[in-house]
Parts: sequence; structure tokens; C-alpha cells
Amino acid sequence: MKNRRSFIKKAGAGIAAAGLLPLSKKSMAGEVKITGALVHHVFFWLKEPKNEAHKKQLLSALNELLKVKTIKMSHIGVPAGTESRDVVDHSYSVSYMVIFNNQADQDAYQIDPIHTKFVEENSHLWSKVIVYDSVDV
Amino acid sequence: MKNRRSFIKKAGAGIAAAGLLPLSKKSMAGEVKITGALVHHVFFWLKEPKNEAHKKQLLSALNELLKVKTIKMSHIGVPAGTESRDVVDHSYSVSYMVIFNNQADQDAYQIDPIHTKFVEENSHLWSKVIVYDSVDV
Repeated sequence: MKNRRSFIKKAGAGIAAAGLLPLSKKSMAGEVKITGALVHHVFFWLKEPKNEAHKKQLLSALNELLKVKTIKMSHIGVPAGTESRDVVDHSYSVSYMVIFNNQADQDAYQIDPIHTKFVEENSHLWSKVIVYDSVDV
Repeated sequence: MKNRRSFIKKAGAGIAAAGLLPLSKKSMAGEVKITGALVHHVFFWLKEPKNEAHKKQLLSALNELLKVKTIKMSHIGVPAGTESRDVVDHSYSVSYMVIFNNQADQDAYQIDPIHTKFVEENSHLWSKVIVYDSVDV
């Protein structure tokens, strides 16, 4: 248990020192709590959800989009096979979550040429997009 | 630049060694890419969005909920002050994102007594919840 704690501490210190997310000290449960961050989560619904070539193109373009310098952490995914419940939305095609240090970095991302090029080249693929931007309280 | 890279490497190694998320090697842009994870993102709409006591209760309860052992990383937030655009949904009250190593850990979380207690004690506060579960491709 002591070893595990010291590893977490080290990991947090390393990320903070690298100018990445200022990870807070471990909570009572020992997990990593992300603080001082803006979480930008985008869900895409493809016009043709069963078109594997479209899905592949979008995923590949999203991976390219991660080159924007202000992005500090990311996860690109598809719906998980979790239980179907009323409250769970499994209908989207692709999930794209990126984390910035602050709103200024998110704003810079919106007008970054890599981002505008991504929208120009790929927006014909999707019928709907929902974006959620969250900052810690 | 060399220093920065070695810090990221160290941070990633530390987190992996601690049995947390297997962070992939940095991408070309230098950010941390989360892989081998299930991202569980929940948005809550309070019945009374302007009731600060209700919001405070929910935030406090969500922080308690982080004690579930299978949670590896988390972010609790509120809508950011980002630009109003058609695609951005700023209407929710609270954002709760937790990351698991895999679906089994998410399934265990759903039936954890800490989670069922959270739902029992707080579900009267919200009118709507949307959950998105994503796994990497």
C-alpha cells in the first residue's frame, strides 16, 4: 500500500512538472483526481453509422487533431458494451474527449488551423454533434 | 524539451506501475493519450438548477462516490464559460466523469453499495441524467 501511494505521488508530480494537468493529491480512495482543467467532450453521430470507411476516416482525422498543442490529455472511443439502461446513450458513433489546462487553451484550439481543417474536411460525415465543456468547481 | 519528455515518460510509468491507467506513449504532440480505459461520463440536470443547496449536495455526494475502489481517474465539473454555439450544450448542472480500466470495473461500480446509496439519497435532486460510456477503439 505504501509503495502504491508513492507511485501515484510520483506520477502526479511528474505530470505537474511537465506543465501538464495539475493533478491533485490522491483522494481517500487513491485514484487520480483531475483538477484545474477544462474537459471538452464531443460526441459524433455519423450520417451513415454503419459505413465503416466513414467511421475509420473520422477516427483517423480525430487522431490527427490531437496534434493541436494545447491539448494535454485525450481519449478517443466508441460506445462501450455496458448495460442498456434508459439513462445511457449508446447511440453515438464516436466519442472524442480532450482536456485543456484552461479555457484560453480551449479557445485557442477552436481557431487552430489543425482544428478548422478537421471541420472542413470531415463535417460532411456527421449528422449531429454534441459538445460538453466542463470546468472544475 | 528533453527534460519535458522524460518527465512525461516517468509520469506514465508511475501511473502504469500503480495499476492505474496504462497511459500510452506520448503522441507526436506530446500530450497524454489515455488508452485501455472505459470513460464513464454522466451529466446531471437538477430539478431546481438555481438551488445552490441542491447543487452543493450533489457535488458533495459525487465526491463521496469517488471512494468506489475501481475508479482510476476522475473529474467533477460544471459548464465552462465557453462560447455559445449550436452544438455546445451548457444546459446541464453538473458533469461527473470517471475512468475505469475496463468494463468489468464499471459493472462492479454500478452495484457497489457506495453507488447504490448515492442514487438512493440523491436521485430526487435531478430531473434528467445522460450517461455516455466509451472505450477506445
